[in-house]
Amino acid sequence: MISSRTSEEDQALRAQTVGELWRRTRRRTVDLVTGLPPEDLVVQSMEDASPAKWHLAHTTWFFETFVLTPFFTRYESPDPRFAFLFNSYYVQAGPRFERAQRGLISRPTVAEVMAYREAVDEAIRTRLDYGGLSPEAIDQLELGCHHEMQHQELLLTDLLHAFSFNPLRPAYRAHESLPVLPFYDTNGWLHFEGGIVEIGHPKNGGFAFDNEGPRHEVLLQPYRLAGRPVTAREWLAFIEDGGYRTPTLWLSDGWATAKRLGWTAPGYWWKEDTRWWSMTLRGPQPVELDAPVTHVSFYEADAFARYAGKRLPTEAEWEVASARCPPKGANFLESGLLRPRSTHPDGPRLAQMWGDVWEWTASPYMAYPGFKPAKGAVGEYNGKFMCNQFVLKGGSCVTPEAQIRPTYRTFFYPHQRWQFMGLRLAEDDL
Amino acid sequence: MISSRTSEEDQALRAQTVGELWRRTRRRTVDLVTGLPPEDLVVQSMEDASPAKWHLAHTTWFFETFVLTPFFTRYESPDPRFAFLFNSYYVQAGPRFERAQRGLISRPTVAEVMAYREAVDEAIRTRLDYGGLSPEAIDQLELGCHHEMQHQELLLTDLLHAFSFNPLRPAYRAHESLPVLPFYDTNGWLHFEGGIVEIGHPKNGGFAFDNEGPRHEVLLQPYRLAGRPVTAREWLAFIEDGGYRTPTLWLSDGWATAKRLGWTAPGYWWKEDTRWWSMTLRGPQPVELDAPVTHVSFYEADAFARYAGKRLPTEAEWEVASARCPPKGANFLESGLLRPRSTHPDGPRLAQMWGDVWEWTASPYMAYPGFKPAKGAVGEYNGKFMCNQFVLKGGSCVTPEAQIRPTYRTFFYPHQRWQFMGLRLAEDDL
Amino acid sequence: MISSRTSEEDQALRAQTVGELWRRTRRRTVDLVTGLPPEDLVVQSMEDASPAKWHLAHTTWFFETFVLTPFFTRYESPDPRFAFLFNSYYVQAGPRFERAQRGLISRPTVAEVMAYREAVDEAIRTRLDYGGLSPEAIDQLELGCHHEMQHQELLLTDLLHAFSFNPLRPAYRAHESLPVLPFYDTNGWLHFEGGIVEIGHPKNGGFAFDNEGPRHEVLLQPYRLAGRPVTAREWLAFIEDGGYRTPTLWLSDGWATAKRLGWTAPGYWWKEDTRWWSMTLRGPQPVELDAPVTHVSFYEADAFARYAGKRLPTEAEWEVASARCPPKGANFLESGLLRPRSTHPDGPRLAQMWGDVWEWTASPYMAYPGFKPAKGAVGEYNGKFMCNQFVLKGGSCVTPEAQIRPTYRTFFYPHQRWQFMGLRLAEDDL
Amino acid sequence: MISSRTSEEDQALRAQTVGELWRRTRRRTVDLVTGLPPEDLVVQSMEDASPAKWHLAHTTWFFETFVLTPFFTRYESPDPRFAFLFNSYYVQAGPRFERAQRGLISRPTVAEVMAYREAVDEAIRTRLDYGGLSPEAIDQLELGCHHEMQHQELLLTDLLHAFSFNPLRPAYRAHESLPVLPFYDTNGWLHFEGGIVEIGHPKNGGFAFDNEGPRHEVLLQPYRLAGRPVTAREWLAFIEDGGYRTPTLWLSDGWATAKRLGWTAPGYWWKEDTRWWSMTLRGPQPVELDAPVTHVSFYEADAFARYAGKRLPTEAEWEVASARCPPKGANFLESGLLRPRSTHPDGPRLAQMWGDVWEWTASPYMAYPGFKPAKGAVGEYNGKFMCNQFVLKGGSCVTPEAQIRPTYRTFFYPHQRWQFMGLRLAEDDL
Repeated sequence: MISSRTSEEDQALRAQTVGELWRRTRRRTVDLVTGLPPEDLVVQSMEDASPAKWHLAHTTWFFETFVLTPFFTRYESPDPRFAFLFNSYYVQAGPRFERAQRGLISRPTVAEVMAYREAVDEAIRTRLDYGGLSPEAIDQLELGCHHEMQHQELLLTDLLHAFSFNPLRPAYRAHESLPVLPFYDTNGWLHFEGGIVEIGHPKNGGFAFDNEGPRHEVLLQPYRLAGRPVTAREWLAFIEDGGYRTPTLWLSDGWATAKRLGWTAPGYWWKEDTRWWSMTLRGPQPVELDAPVTHVSFYEADAFARYAGKRLPTEAEWEVASARCPPKGANFLESGLLRPRSTHPDGPRLAQMWGDVWEWTASPYMAYPGFKPAKGAVGEYNGKFMCNQFVLKGGSCVTPEAQIRPTYRTFFYPHQRWQFMGLRLAEDDL
Repeated sequence: MISSRTSEEDQALRAQTVGELWRRTRRRTVDLVTGLPPEDLVVQSMEDASPAKWHLAHTTWFFETFVLTPFFTRYESPDPRFAFLFNSYYVQAGPRFERAQRGLISRPTVAEVMAYREAVDEAIRTRLDYGGLSPEAIDQLELGCHHEMQHQELLLTDLLHAFSFNPLRPAYRAHESLPVLPFYDTNGWLHFEGGIVEIGHPKNGGFAFDNEGPRHEVLLQPYRLAGRPVTAREWLAFIEDGGYRTPTLWLSDGWATAKRLGWTAPGYWWKEDTRWWSMTLRGPQPVELDAPVTHVSFYEADAFARYAGKRLPTEAEWEVASARCPPKGANFLESGLLRPRSTHPDGPRLAQMWGDVWEWTASPYMAYPGFKPAKGAVGEYNGKFMCNQFVLKGGSCVTPEAQIRPTYRTFFYPHQRWQFMGLRLAEDDL
Repeated sequence: MISSRTSEEDQALRAQTVGELWRRTRRRTVDLVTGLPPEDLVVQSMEDASPAKWHLAHTTWFFETFVLTPFFTRYESPDPRFAFLFNSYYVQAGPRFERAQRGLISRPTVAEVMAYREAVDEAIRTRLDYGGLSPEAIDQLELGCHHEMQHQELLLTDLLHAFSFNPLRPAYRAHESLPVLPFYDTNGWLHFEGGIVEIGHPKNGGFAFDNEGPRHEVLLQPYRLAGRPVTAREWLAFIEDGGYRTPTLWLSDGWATAKRLGWTAPGYWWKEDTRWWSMTLRGPQPVELDAPVTHVSFYEADAFARYAGKRLPTEAEWEVASARCPPKGANFLESGLLRPRSTHPDGPRLAQMWGDVWEWTASPYMAYPGFKPAKGAVGEYNGKFMCNQFVLKGGSCVTPEAQIRPTYRTFFYPHQRWQFMGLRLAEDDL
Repeated sequence: MISSRTSEEDQALRAQTVGELWRRTRRRTVDLVTGLPPEDLVVQSMEDASPAKWHLAHTTWFFETFVLTPFFTRYESPDPRFAFLFNSYYVQAGPRFERAQRGLISRPTVAEVMAYREAVDEAIRTRLDYGGLSPEAIDQLELGCHHEMQHQELLLTDLLHAFSFNPLRPAYRAHESLPVLPFYDTNGWLHFEGGIVEIGHPKNGGFAFDNEGPRHEVLLQPYRLAGRPVTAREWLAFIEDGGYRTPTLWLSDGWATAKRLGWTAPGYWWKEDTRWWSMTLRGPQPVELDAPVTHVSFYEADAFARYAGKRLPTEAEWEVASARCPPKGANFLESGLLRPRSTHPDGPRLAQMWGDVWEWTASPYMAYPGFKPAKGAVGEYNGKFMCNQFVLKGGSCVTPEAQIRPTYRTFFYPHQRWQFMGLRLAEDDL
């Protein structure tokens, strides 16, 4: 991460700002599981997902390991064995429990994990209140908040994934109608000039993860972006037109994956009689035809784009375009909707760039020129995953708003689709 | 199952007896999970094991499906969807949820499962109290009790298996010293004459599962049985003598399995410095050297017997011998010890035939001559497993006493070892 | 193996007899591959099968390792590295090449393997001609012949398996009409009395493998055997009656296997329009409806028996019955037919007990009471496989006649079906 | 592919040139297998590799399918069934035989495949001789030659892979000393200016595959390239310095792969006593310490670069730099060495850019801006693999010289290493 470093007199202000973010973030994670029985919090439905209890504990372990332990030699963990259980993948932070077996761990119980959270929070709160955190510790605290926001999103997508196996089809939150939005069909296309542009996060530009920088120049050719993401209605046409049965539309690896996993529709979709349904955080719901399609993999998004005679945008194309539409009014986690909305105008003709669904780009997730991982174990945060994954941009309906920036890069393997993933089309404009 | 069929006037008495058994059995299952947090009851640690919650529900489903639904047309299930979730393998009782995914199902919650138990119990209790159960229904009720006793044992062995993955090494029950038993080394050998003998359960001999009969003649040659099971101390000698590194001691399939799974000691054993420990239902404990070795597979038991220059007894040899020692004072579930005791005299020189550890026999689990499965879905109870498994006899420290008879046959695949499985040696005596 | 041991003056005669068997056996193996291109001899189509080239070399290695090396200290192998390549599974005979990778080994070439055969044969021939083989060496030579006969059968079944993958559907030998046999429907049933009977091979009863003894008593109940094996026509009725779609007919493991492997008919069968075809050693052929069904697994045989309301015979039942019909005129390898014939009368009413197809029994392959493996590496021949497999009796159309005896036990896993495996029904006759 | 399209009068000349290339190419493929026994040509050692016989047939099928069949309606295949057997992955060219089972196919024999080659060659030769090939057919003929050259390389690397499993360690060609080269340590670094540069193949620039274009602009920052590839000696230091035991040097996927496959050295390396050996096309040889390291995966190359404090070059950086050194004197297939040479000066300070070993770049294999696949089945040649793979540049010691251009892109998955793959280091030069 790259954080702003201000003069001495600004430190107190910064500590206060970050402290406020920290309080909000910690509180919201707990809010997210409020009302759920402990049973829901223990289940791990695949290796990619983790139990909610694990997210609760791991985010706490992060503050303990990167804020309390290194900066406060007298700090004692409530249970030193938790370090082994709740380290995710930081080799430099010591050994860790087998990822695929997180669902086998009934203890510590949810109540014990909550007590662990409280103990660590109390330790940080005390130090915050007495101004005891050095600028470096404040930087780590901020990093921990952004880390925890990422896990808030994962907590929800992992819960949805687990619920999707349950024939009782539980709802995370009770059904609530989506606001009735006028359907503006903003399916116009916007033109963007090419040329040398800058992307990536500048030094001293506020918080960002290390992988968002350095800011650097890239050369773009003129291109066009669709005015809104691909909708479920359009996806249905793809299905009905044999999209899942036509190998020439697919990348070779994509076709093999689709066959192996038996894909015939987006994730969580099923058909009852003639109507398509989808499993959502509000339980089973009819597919919203004018909302962006979601839970599609890169392979599917790529095949759809080929079917449509278009392509996916590159990360740079997306990032440059995003400058034209501020995230104001976007459907992030804070909206409480927990689902993508139907298409609507977000600004002048470039709808839903922010929130609703992550948008797959054509860009493999690689280091920017001159990239240097952060020092120490947190340097493992992003750099070691720069292979075999693709970048998505813009956040989703379960992304905390404070986490998103134009330069924010999330990344997933091309077969993964349990996140709220969708797509927007692009094409050359020569 | 084969059940006694008595004259009209005995029906009431029989209903009362079975009703009593049913009350005791249902109560004990609940007792077994009392005090455990819901988190413990949700975990599934391998495909062979099930979550405790599933055992609680499945045993209830059994009564619903085989007692209430067929005999009481006006019975309505509290939730008809449970039939899909909690059917284990009865093809004739309808489709069922994927076994390997039982650990993904957080709902119904434990509390909801308990309510389901209570609803079904109430429906049965009402009918029992008013004498409303026909002789056939009483037979099924009795079957359900014996079925539930089997699941009581599985519930405990599955919990132990799940706990064994947890680096915190939880205890099911707090540690408690085993009673200090005098160590009688009953390692004498008992002689048995050969000849034509009868084994298997006779018609009208009280409750038994269908696979225990028909009673039939077998021809035995003279043989000898060891006075007690093989102990952990003896197993240690086998380990130290290179037993796990000597392929010529093993069956070919056994050796391949041992290599593949990396076995170098019984299940749940590990060495710390120079001392061997074992994971038990009372948490981690030093291995009791004079207690029967347990958590050994058929493959290991067979290799040990070859190492010792002996063999495993056949099922018939074991059953005939068992007539000499009544199960009085045996260490079953009711003792509350939850672990095998050190060797002690159970009677005149044939110690621990009953309880403590199941004893592997050399007998593949096959149908007895003239075997006919019970009619209907309960006919799938035993018969369809008569392939690739071996018979064990005598029960263990977590087997309910009422479940055990000389003719009782449990059966497992030769690689399985998460039950309390041990062995007793035999040899020809020509 | 158990071999006859005669007085001094009989040794020369015995050496001559065994020598003759050896010459015949070695010659026939070479005959079996005559005319095949080297390409056919290199292929390994599954882990259970081996390349023909490997069979040619392994049978040679057997004589080198168990006759030449132990008894002739001055013997030098043409290539000592072959010992590693061509040891199958004898742990005591040293390390060996990975079984599943036999198909990766292009060298030694077929010509080099033939030279290896010739060199070893020459070494043995010389010693035979000069009377240089001790009685013990003659015993091993005889064992090697029976071993090689087993591999003759495997060589053919493995070739057929490999050819079955080839869309060109090659024929091992050119098509030739089966002799036109009158179809005697000997589907009468024969009654056999129960009582104490003896089975297994007696000491001093001529050559037998170690697993055929000791001869011992078993107790049989009265039973009946079908007058002929189940035919393809009967199997077709099973298929059309939904046999492969009805789980209640199957053992649980059998059903899971059938689903996993997608079985809907015997091995090598397929349907073109309305007619069933089968891949044979004489290329693709219409299924002979009145010939015994073949290439069915134990699981399928067991399901068929249940479907028919019968059962498989036990090994003892089969062996006792076989005394009533001598193998004269049976369809073994020597007939050159390479396929099972249609039903015909082999003697009075118990047709085709010998040759045509191996018959699955209900008996798990286990040690006979008092079984002791042969000493040394050849003791690994049979004993270590006594688990998880089932016994078949009677030989097939590709079994050398000299290999078969009433006591001969072949054994395979219940899912295997690439041998010429069929079945005969049995039932209790109380 | 993009091919030059010239005026009418140039067609004859072009047909002659391409015809010459075609004759040379076809002849060389046969030369490559001359002297090998048929056994060597049948083996498939992994799914990624194919039998030599398959390469011989598939390259022939290519000409049949894309030259003879579409342009000559009266052409009849010698065996229409070969189309199924020898189609590799062209969905639009019809169904095809399972790739992983190519090693199971003994027929057609090598001799039959050679006859197939001859029949197809005769058909083309006749048409060439009579000027019967249209410009479009000539284009396809040229494409087929470049396709066949690719398979020449694969044929050799696949043979080496198969031989590597054989404990006899066969040599493809007899050992022959490498020419004694002076060891010029050209480990200086060359500076390259950044700026907007062009890469990719221009229209009308002679033959190229479709994936090499369109030519387009990219923006480079100043960078430096190492004067020669990384040597085996340097790799040895990496090994001895714990490179294969230090997870922080590796990408996360790379580390998992290295653990799973047990990598501790480059492919085909092993240590005997204190010396490292390598399996080569000339049999087992001591590792040449001053030759470029080869048979390293992208994951290993990337880890090495991180260990060295450098990085891999991008494809654009490599391509731009390659302009400085012509391929003259490079070690391609034509040299007959079959192994990379020790470092030597190829020109002024940028050694071994061409031949010896393919060089991994940091560039994921993706479409160039504006890329359009060729029409029809040949459009599947490259485009559908644009995911999850990385680009390598420069050719190797078994690449035909005529195949290589600065714009040539080969691509492999990051875990693959059975090709002659090495690396050259790069760094920013800001």
